[in-house]
Amino acid sequence: MEILILGGDGFCGWPTALHLSAHGHTVTIVDSFVRRRIDDELGVRSLTPIRPIGERLEAWDSLTGNEIDLAEMDLSEDYSSLRDLLARKRPAAVVHFAEQRAAPYSMKSPAHKRYTIQNNLAVTHNLLTAVVELGLDTHIVHLGTMGVYGYESVPMDLPEGYLTVSYPDRTGRNHSREILYPTQPGSVYHLSKSLDQLLFQFYANNDGLRITDLHQGIVWGTQTDETALDPRLINRFDYDGDYGTVLNRFLVEAAIGYPLTVHGTGGQTRAFINIRDTVRCIQLAVESGAEVSGRVRVMNQVSETHRVSDLAHLVADLLGAEVGSVSNPRKEAHENQLEVRNDQLVSLGLRPIKLATGLLTESVEIVQKYSDRVDTDRIPCTSYWNRDRQAAAEGETVAHPRQETDENELSVRNHSARRIG
Amino acid sequence: MEILILGGDGFCGWPTALHLSAHGHTVTIVDSFVRRRIDDELGVRSLTPIRPIGERLEAWDSLTGNEIDLAEMDLSEDYSSLRDLLARKRPAAVVHFAEQRAAPYSMKSPAHKRYTIQNNLAVTHNLLTAVVELGLDTHIVHLGTMGVYGYESVPMDLPEGYLTVSYPDRTGRNHSREILYPTQPGSVYHLSKSLDQLLFQFYANNDGLRITDLHQGIVWGTQTDETALDPRLINRFDYDGDYGTVLNRFLVEAAIGYPLTVHGTGGQTRAFINIRDTVRCIQLAVESGAEVSGRVRVMNQVSETHRVSDLAHLVADLLGAEVGSVSNPRKEAHENQLEVRNDQLVSLGLRPIKLATGLLTESVEIVQKYSDRVDTDRIPCTSYWNRDRQAAAEGETVAHPRQETDENELSVRNHSARRIG
Repeated sequence: MEILILGGDGFCGWPTALHLSAHGHTVTIVDSFVRRRIDDELGVRSLTPIRPIGERLEAWDSLTGNEIDLAEMDLSEDYSSLRDLLARKRPAAVVHFAEQRAAPYSMKSPAHKRYTIQNNLAVTHNLLTAVVELGLDTHIVHLGTMGVYGYESVPMDLPEGYLTVSYPDRTGRNHSREILYPTQPGSVYHLSKSLDQLLFQFYANNDGLRITDLHQGIVWGTQTDETALDPRLINRFDYDGDYGTVLNRFLVEAAIGYPLTVHGTGGQTRAFINIRDTVRCIQLAVESGAEVSGRVRVMNQVSETHRVSDLAHLVADLLGAEVGSVSNPRKEAHENQLEVRNDQLVSLGLRPIKLATGLLTESVEIVQKYSDRVDTDRIPCTSYWNRDRQAAAEGETVAHPRQETDENELSVRNHSARRIG
Repeated sequence: MEILILGGDGFCGWPTALHLSAHGHTVTIVDSFVRRRIDDELGVRSLTPIRPIGERLEAWDSLTGNEIDLAEMDLSEDYSSLRDLLARKRPAAVVHFAEQRAAPYSMKSPAHKRYTIQNNLAVTHNLLTAVVELGLDTHIVHLGTMGVYGYESVPMDLPEGYLTVSYPDRTGRNHSREILYPTQPGSVYHLSKSLDQLLFQFYANNDGLRITDLHQGIVWGTQTDETALDPRLINRFDYDGDYGTVLNRFLVEAAIGYPLTVHGTGGQTRAFINIRDTVRCIQLAVESGAEVSGRVRVMNQVSETHRVSDLAHLVADLLGAEVGSVSNPRKEAHENQLEVRNDQLVSLGLRPIKLATGLLTESVEIVQKYSDRVDTDRIPCTSYWNRDRQAAAEGETVAHPRQETDENELSVRNHSARRIG
C-alpha cells in the first residue's frame, strides 16, 4: 500500500514508518520536525541519541533496501503542499500522528495551550478537507488517546468509542441510541483529541470519509524490531516532566538514583501499551481498512491497565530505587478504577505484550547505557493544570494571578529555537 | 456592568450592544469588521443600508448620551490585544458573537471550511485562555446554535444542553449520568459550535470559569427598539444564499416577485426567534450571571418551531408570492419533527414574540422600502454540502471531483477584499 505517515519522525511515528516499510508498504514520512525544536525550547534531549532524519532514512535504505520518501512541511499551515502531496501520492492510507502530544506541555502557559489547540485542530482539519477536495478514497488512521474518555473517580468500564444509551423524553417515552462516548478530557492536549473526534464524526457522515480513530494508552518502551537493527535507527526516549510518559520516567529515575516522581497518591489507574504493540496495531488498522459507513471506526489501542503506584513499586523493586511523592500538578481524581475493552484489535490479531516480561529489562538496559545523558533538572513536571495545583506545588495559597510569559508566539512555530520557558 | 461585545458590529451583536447600552450597561464593541469584508468577497450587501461603525456610534451617543467604546482587533490572531483589553476593562461579562455564522458560507470551498474552523475556534479559545491567564471572574456568554443538536428524522424533544442517560456495563450493572447532549452538527459552521462546547466544558471544569452557552434558533426580523430609533442605527438584513436566514430570505423573495426558495420538500422543522427576543435573551443571560460550578450553563434561546414549508406558505399568502422548490444543497433529513425546551430563559423573564404578529408586517415594510437594493443573482444558495448534493443541483451524476478554487487563504483574513468565489 501507498501510505503517508504524518509526524513520521516522532516517538510513535518513526517506528511505525519503519514497521510498515518492513512489511512491504510504500511509505512517505511527512514531518515539520517541530518535535526536535521543542527539545531545544525545553532545553532537553532524548535520552537516546536520535539521528537526523536524513541519516535515519539512509541507514534504513542501506540496511533493508527499502526506500522511505520524505516530505518536510508544516501541515498546520501549508495546506496547498499537503494537498499537492496527496494528489501526487493518492495514498491508500494516511496515518496521522502530527499533533502536539504531551499533556503537561499543553498546560505550560497560555501560549502552549493556544499552540496545542490551533496546531492539532488545523492539521486534522486540513487533512480531512484535502481528502474531500481531491475526492480520494484514502483511509485515515488517527492516533487518539484513552485520555479523552476521562478518568472519573467512579469505576469505569470503557467501551470502544461508542456507548448505547437510553433516556426518557418529556412524555416519559424512552429513547435509545448509540452516541460517541461523552468525553471528559483532562488537559488541553486531551481536549484537542476530543475536538478531533467531532471533526471525524462530521466528515465521515457528510462526505463518507473512511476513518479509524485509535484511542491509545500510555506508551512505554523504546525499541521495536526495526529500530533495534542499527544504532542509527534508535527511537527517541523522553524522560522529562513534559514529554516523559510515566513508566519511562520511572525507569530513568531509578537508573540514576532519583526518587520516583509519583504524582499525588499514585492511585490513578491508567491504560498502557508497549511501543512494539503500537506499531503492530497501526499495521492491523491500516491493513484491515475501514468501510464507507458514515461512522468512524474507533478502537482502543491498549494492552493492560495498572495503578501508577503499583508501577512505581514494580520499578523500585526491580532496580532498588526509592518511591517518592510530589504534589500532583494535574487536576484529576486522586484514585480511580478503570477497565478497558480492546476486543477489536485483539480480534484483528493483536497479542498484547504485558509489562512483566523481558521488555522491561530491555528498557532498563537502554536507560543504563545512556544514563550520563540525563539532566535531572528536567525531570520534575513544572506545568500546573490550574492555580490551585500551582499553589499546592509551591506550598502557597492562591493570592495573585501568577506571572505568565509575555511571549505570545511559540518559537517552535517559526523554526527558530528561542527558549520561552 | 462593564460588558464587552465581541462581534458587536454584526447582525446580532450590533442590536445587542445598543440594547445593553440602553439598559444602563457600559459597553465596548470589539470587532474586526470581517463581516463587512465578506459582503465584498461575496459581492452582496445588506438589504438595509448599514452605516460605518463610527457613524453608528456617534448617532447612538448623540441620540441617547450613551457612549459605546470601540476596539478594532482580529480576535483570532491578536491574542495580546485581547488580553490587554480584558486587563484594562476587567469586564463583568463578555458576550461572544465573534464567529463566522453562516452554514452555507462554511461549506463553500475548502478555504471557507478551513477559515470557519480556524477562526471560530481560535477566537473562543483565545478568550478562554486570556480570562484564565488574567484570573478574571468574567462571565462569558456565548452565542451557540440549535444546529449543534442535529436534526434527525426521528421526532426530537430537545432538552437544554444536557441529557441524563443510562447504560449498562459489561456486567449488566446500570450506570446513570448527565452528559452534554451528543451533538450531530449539520455543517462545518455548526461543527465549530460543537467544538466550542467542548472548550467551554473543559475550562469550566479545569479553571472554574463562569460560562453561559446560548443555543439560538434561526433569527428573523431586523429592527429592535434601539436600532429603529434612527436610520443611522439600522440593523443589517441579509437575504443572499449564504447569509440570508430562511424567513428573511422568503420575505425578500416575496417582495420582489421571486419564487420562494424552499430547499427540498420544506419538511424541515426548525426553531426560530425574533431579533428583539435575541437581544432580550442576552440581557437576561448577562444580568442573571452564572455560578462557579464547574458546569457550563446551557440555555435554548428559541421562541417557537415551524416547518419551513409552512413558513413559505404563510409568507406567500401574506404577500401573494409563489412558493418554489430547489434541490436541497444540504445533506440533511428531508423531514423532521422537533420540539424544543426554553424553560430557563422563560423563567428568567422571556416572553417570546411569536410569528403571527405585527412584526412580520414590519419586516415586510423594510423589505419593500429597500427592494431596489436586491441583487437576485445572489439569492440562490450555491454552497453544496458534498458531491452528491452538488450533482443533484446540477442534474448530473458524480463523475469527477469538481474543480475547487486554488485560493487557499481567504481575502477576508487579511483585510483586503479580493473575490474568491
